[in-house]
Order: sequence, then C-alpha cells, then structure tokens
Amino acid sequence: MIDPAALQQIQSIIQNGKRFLLTTHVNADGDGIGSEIALSHHLRDLGKEVHIFNHNPTPENLEFLDPRNDLQLFEAQKHGELVREMDAVFILDISDWERLRDLGKLLRALPVAKVCIDHHPAEDRMGEVDIILPEASSTGEIVYDLLIKLDARLQGKMVEALYTAVLTDTGSFRFSNTNSRAHEIAADLIARGVKPHHIYQEVYERQPANKMRLLGQILNNLNFSKDGRLVWFTVTQAMLRATGTQPRDTEGFADFPRGIDGVELCLMFLETEKGQTKISFRSKGRIVINGLANRFGGGGHPYASGALVDGPVQEVVPRVVAEAKEFFA
Amino acid sequence: MIDPAALQQIQSIIQNGKRFLLTTHVNADGDGIGSEIALSHHLRDLGKEVHIFNHNPTPENLEFLDPRNDLQLFEAQKHGELVREMDAVFILDISDWERLRDLGKLLRALPVAKVCIDHHPAEDRMGEVDIILPEASSTGEIVYDLLIKLDARLQGKMVEALYTAVLTDTGSFRFSNTNSRAHEIAADLIARGVKPHHIYQEVYERQPANKMRLLGQILNNLNFSKDGRLVWFTVTQAMLRATGTQPRDTEGFADFPRGIDGVELCLMFLETEKGQTKISFRSKGRIVINGLANRFGGGGHPYASGALVDGPVQEVVPRVVAEAKEFFA
Repeated sequence: MIDPAALQQIQSIIQNGKRFLLTTHVNADGDGIGSEIALSHHLRDLGKEVHIFNHNPTPENLEFLDPRNDLQLFEAQKHGELVREMDAVFILDISDWERLRDLGKLLRALPVAKVCIDHHPAEDRMGEVDIILPEASSTGEIVYDLLIKLDARLQGKMVEALYTAVLTDTGSFRFSNTNSRAHEIAADLIARGVKPHHIYQEVYERQPANKMRLLGQILNNLNFSKDGRLVWFTVTQAMLRATGTQPRDTEGFADFPRGIDGVELCLMFLETEKGQTKISFRSKGRIVINGLANRFGGGGHPYASGALVDGPVQEVVPRVVAEAKEFFA
Repeated sequence: MIDPAALQQIQSIIQNGKRFLLTTHVNADGDGIGSEIALSHHLRDLGKEVHIFNHNPTPENLEFLDPRNDLQLFEAQKHGELVREMDAVFILDISDWERLRDLGKLLRALPVAKVCIDHHPAEDRMGEVDIILPEASSTGEIVYDLLIKLDARLQGKMVEALYTAVLTDTGSFRFSNTNSRAHEIAADLIARGVKPHHIYQEVYERQPANKMRLLGQILNNLNFSKDGRLVWFTVTQAMLRATGTQPRDTEGFADFPRGIDGVELCLMFLETEKGQTKISFRSKGRIVINGLANRFGGGGHPYASGALVDGPVQEVVPRVVAEAKEFFA
C-alpha cells in the first residue's frame, strides 16, 4: 500500500516539474526497465519532458519495450549538464546509491526532488519520497498501483512494460515472491490488451542457438555429490570459445539444475577472461547460502548469491565444493 | 460462463446422488487430475462417496495432490461392478469417448447422469450436461467457477489442485490460452493459501537427473534448417538406454528449442520400442502445423500436434523434415 502522504507528495512533484529523470540500478532488468518505461509514458502523457538514463545497454530481450530508443546510456561527460537541469528524479527498483554508479554520485548532490520506488529492503535513504515496499512482488507492482492512483491512461507499451516487470521479477509467476497482487495486476493488464504469449516470446524465447548448445554440454556433464543434493558445473573460456558464446549467455544456467529432483544447492563456476572464477550459488529454498558466498567475498540473497574469486577454476572449484559440502553435515 | 440451466442440473445431480465416479482422459495431466481432486473434495465435503478412476498411474510430479491415494487405476474386471453402482459420473478435461478407453465403453452404456466439463473443442456429445468452454484456459478454470457457484469450501488440497490445473495447462501462465481469468483465479487461490513456489517445485522441479543428461545431449545436437526457423532432433532407444531414461522422460523436450531466437517450428522424433517413430510437432505460433501432423496420420492443436508413424527413425526423419521444409516456402 502506497502511503497517502507519499502519493500526495508525488502528485505535487509531478505537477510542479517540467523535466524528469528516470533511472534504475546497474545491469537493469525487466523490473527496472519495465518500471521506467511505464512511468515515462505517463509523464509524457502529461506533457512532461522525460529522460531515462541507465548504466548498461538495454538487454536485447527487453528492446521491444523501447521502440523509440528512449533508454539512454548515461555518460557523465555528455549528460552531466542535462542532469543538472532536471526538476525531479525517479529512482526505480533500487535504494542503494552505489548501484547507480556515476549517475548516483551526481544525483545524490543534486538539490531537486527525488522519489525512490523499490521492493528491495532499503540500503540508503534516497529522496524526499521513498516508497519501499518489500512485500511487493516487484517494483512494477508498486508503479502499477501508483499509476492507477494517478489516474494514468494504462495502455499500449505502458501495460506491456508493467506486465514485463511483474513477469520477470516473479520468474513467470513461480518464485516465492509471487503473491495474489501480482496475479491481480497481470489479470488487469491482460484485460487492457497485453498478450501474455507475445511478451513471453519476446522476453524468454529469443535465446541464441549457441547458448542452447552450451547449456546442452553443461546438462550432459553435471557433477553431483551428497546423494544428489549438491550439484555443480564449470564453464571455461574454452567452452565459450568452442560454442561461440559470451559470459552473459550463461545467465540463468545456475537456476537450471534446480529442476532436478533432490537437488538442494547448485553452484556454477564461470572462468573469466582474466582467469578469475565467478561463482553463482543457487538454493532450492532449504539451505541459506549467502553465508557461503560471504566466505568467498561475495553476497546476495538467502537463496541466490554470488562471488568473484581470484584464482583459476581448477583451483577454486574443489575449494568451494569442499566448503559447500559442509553445509550438508 | 457456466450456463445457469446447466448449473441447476448439476446441483440437482449432486443433491440426488450418493455415489459419484470421476474420470479424465488417458495420460491424465495436471488439469485433468487437478480438476478431479478439487471436485472430489467438494463431493466428499457433502458426504458423498467418490471414486476416481484413471487409465494410467498418476505422474510422480502430481502425487502431492493425492496423499490419500484416491486416484485409482481403472481395471474393467476388478471395477466393472462398482462402476455400475454409481449414481452419476463426472468426465473432466475430455469430450471424446475414445480417450476414456475401456472405462469409456462402460460409461457410454451406463444409464446414469453424466456431466462433462471440458475446455477442448467437443468431439462427442457426452452426457446430460456438457459444459464445453473452449475460451477457458483450462478445465480447472471451469471447475473453479463451478465450485464457487456451488458454494464449495475452497481450501487445502482443493485449492492446490485447482492452482495446479491452471498452472500446468497455461504452461506457468505463458501459453496463448493464458487469459485474465486464469490470473484472477490464481490470485484468489493464493489468497486462500496456495504457496505458488511450493507447487512449482512439486510440479516442475522433481525431474530425474538422467532426464537432464538426455536433454543435454539433445540440446548439444540440434539440427537446423531454413535459416534456423526449422529445428529437429531424434531420441533413439539407444539414447534412452545410455542415459537410463524412459520415453515419458522426453515429455516437454519438443517445447525446449522454442526458446531459440528465430525458431518457428520444432520436430521431435522418438523411436519407440517397437521400432515405430513418434513425432511431436511444435510451432511458436506463426505456422499452423496440425495439417502437417494429419499428413502422417496424426493430429492435434494448431501449434502442438503429434503423430505415430510406422517405420524406423532413419527413414521417417528425412521424409517428415522434407515435408516440413515445404511449410517455409
């Protein structure tokens, strides 16, 4: 539930401003980008000037949300002046200045109204209005509620963007954050014109054929231990070269072996170009693993964590697997 | 929408009967079994005697819906007499006598009230009351609406069963049959106690490790044609033996390559024990393929069809692939 006082503040910020900046966290995902697109459409419908600045190029599978190329890659030198001319800033899906990189430094010092909307537990106090609702499935859920309260005209790309936000952050309505509200919103957005099958194809069914080959090699060579409760696999630079894939193609691979009966913990080891080892820790929900990630200098969520370790995979894998085994004592 | 007259008939059939038989199609799935379980709980809540007869053992991933082992494997010799003592029959998720096998023959001749509830286009006239709603996402959706109208106490396994029905038949809310209503129902069922993540794990994350190995081998050896728009793969008996898998472990494999960018049509060829070839046709939505399936003596939905062809895979594969290529002319 959005606090009525916060809602009033936002209404007044929108009414009084002419130029708005929208942004989200580094490595923007469907929730961050979907929330930006939806809110930007509403602001433009009101005749406002809107600039969306992100820290990475838009992932290919989300480009369909942005046919006009409204999402811009932020460059401090090029955009610094423009940013200083903004009347207000919306920070979406993140409440941690660090994860706004260069833009964060600039915004933090900027004497304008800032609104932060996020469903992650807050790291920092961000703005005049911080709407932080960890019970929400996604930031898209909060933005949807906000837009309804603001009497926004929900249609076209706006509804597709909100649907994509909820869809991606709930893992297609299957993660533990999936709540009644997420489904209610999906129901309403479909009634407003979203074609779920179409969005699903755009988001999930545009994977490179080479990625499937790499996934095939991985699934054919999984390592098991602890009666099949622990599973791990390694992706080397040689494997990436042989299949013509990029490190980012491995995204989501660590979630895959979770589908296997009995698996409780999955580890993915990715050899980086510089010979370091990137580890992804995924738990099915019984074992809390951010503690394990911490031991290797990483961190994250209780059931999805990561770490970057100095050292080649040949050396790191046995060390981490040995420690992981202790979790099954 | 359930026709009010049909609803009244069902109310009277339930009121006047003491013993009820529930069944669904051969190779019962989440929608059929979920619908059976949900309806059976309501009938038992009313003090009725309920027998559920299916034609195959319950798939392992759906066993959680049936902790009391209410689902029985029908045997004409053993259960024939009992079936003749029933007061009424509910036939769920199917309107085709053929697909009720031996039980179908028996029921067809049985002079008792029959109610058929289905969301597939009707093949046969089945009973006194046929509720056939092809616009429904699933039979579970219709059974949910019915149970609401019957003032059923929706809780426990009943809501889990209904959720599973909608979840599985919409492919986790992503197939083209996913509608607003499916999400509205999911929202209500979650509010009534369903834990989506828990159900997802039961249904989708209990796959045998060997199945993953087989999937790995397949993904590593996909065949492409027509600029990547046509993809196919073959599963031989030798591959099943080498990975310790069963033919049923290949279920869903044909859907997999749909995730690849540009793929429009996927064909899976499965060598049977008797040396025949079972073909699964899957289209991403542009190409209608039940016509192709028809040419080989099969049939099905516009975007998901099947056929069983006499002849070894070595001979059938090139023949079918050649015909499939013509669809891209």
